[in-house]
Amino acid sequence: MVVYVNVEFLAKDAAKAAERGDLIVIIDALRCSSTVVTALANGARAIIPVKTLAEARRIHAENPDYILAGERGGLKPSGFNLGNSPLEYTRERVSGKTIILTTTSGTSALTYSRDADWILVGAFLNARAIAEKAYSIASAEGINVSVVQAGTRGRFSLEDFLCAGAIISELPKGGVELSDAAQASLLAFEHVKDDLLANVMRSRHARRLVELGFIKDIEFSCKKDLFPIVPIYRGGVISKIE
Amino acid sequence: MVVYVNVEFLAKDAAKAAERGDLIVIIDALRCSSTVVTALANGARAIIPVKTLAEARRIHAENPDYILAGERGGLKPSGFNLGNSPLEYTRERVSGKTIILTTTSGTSALTYSRDADWILVGAFLNARAIAEKAYSIASAEGINVSVVQAGTRGRFSLEDFLCAGAIISELPKGGVELSDAAQASLLAFEHVKDDLLANVMRSRHARRLVELGFIKDIEFSCKKDLFPIVPIYRGGVISKIE
Repeated sequence: MVVYVNVEFLAKDAAKAAERGDLIVIIDALRCSSTVVTALANGARAIIPVKTLAEARRIHAENPDYILAGERGGLKPSGFNLGNSPLEYTRERVSGKTIILTTTSGTSALTYSRDADWILVGAFLNARAIAEKAYSIASAEGINVSVVQAGTRGRFSLEDFLCAGAIISELPKGGVELSDAAQASLLAFEHVKDDLLANVMRSRHARRLVELGFIKDIEFSCKKDLFPIVPIYRGGVISKIE
Repeated sequence: MVVYVNVEFLAKDAAKAAERGDLIVIIDALRCSSTVVTALANGARAIIPVKTLAEARRIHAENPDYILAGERGGLKPSGFNLGNSPLEYTRERVSGKTIILTTTSGTSALTYSRDADWILVGAFLNARAIAEKAYSIASAEGINVSVVQAGTRGRFSLEDFLCAGAIISELPKGGVELSDAAQASLLAFEHVKDDLLANVMRSRHARRLVELGFIKDIEFSCKKDLFPIVPIYRGGVISKIE
């Protein structure tokens, strides 16, 4: 069967996609999705995304063996074990661990989509794996796919748009019908795919991260298909689909 | 000075752009903008865009020498002189005339932007002329530019996105700073510019117009820079900037 694939440009539009009964792929390529994918690839058992610092600290107080992680304004909050740099999530640090993660845009997009049955987490790092799994689930269940850009502070972000296109480029040709927004993201990705990093660097969010000293995170987050990992968010927890 | 250039994906976001004090370029490439540009290029004196059929008919009753024109569901309403096909707006029919025009998406975008000081109407047909004029006005006035996609029935449309990119591609390099959305549209346009028609044809709205028999309108509307015309909407009327 043909799966209809849409792209939503803003985190809040995840709620509409959930209402429609779509399988949702949340993208926050810089850096929340990339962090989630890397942590699971390096053996983290689960990630608990939470909205507020207070909630993160409360869960950590009750579960002191969990890793307390995340960012505000791109930086690691005081007293946290890890920030939001995928490169921090090494096997030595995260294997077998549960991570409490609070970020701004990425966590917000997950919250908006919480009523959906299927919520996957996509990045450049796992674009192909996400495309294959999203297609196989959606065609088996007879539902549509909505790729939702988390964006930056509630606004459209170029890097998430290109990442949506990267995922869409890996869907089976002939097996999908693309919305206008999905086609737009695919055209832009096809134009830059051989020079992805330089184009992601032009985004407002990337320039901000460079200022904060996180250029290596951007370089790493642009490595397409480094990890064949599919994170799924269900029951308040993100884990790896085996 | 450097002019900041943004793209808004939906007609209703013209209101935000007007609030910010931006120069607004309204795009409804299929077909309202293309019709406006063609009519003015062929000597129409002015175009009065109105929202409702009733309002259009009322103005026409008071001014029977005006041309009553527009569409609903893509088709010419009963009793109207012209539809929304740019190809109908020949010099023989429109030279020296005033046109009352009611369309769905394009007229709506103009209404949302009405509080702005500068509202221009852009299409593929006049992309370069619009870019040059928008830049020269915005840099002289010290304001930003918002290119607003009229979209289709309140939704994102691929053809307007590509048209936004076409206009942005003609802005002076080094003279502008592009928002993430503006960069996204430019990347997509650059990818398809040598095969514009085939890509515009993939949009939902174009497929609908083909079904209705308007394929020639799409072919015509994709002719980039056919007319060096800049339509301006002011005081309720669209006319040509001389």
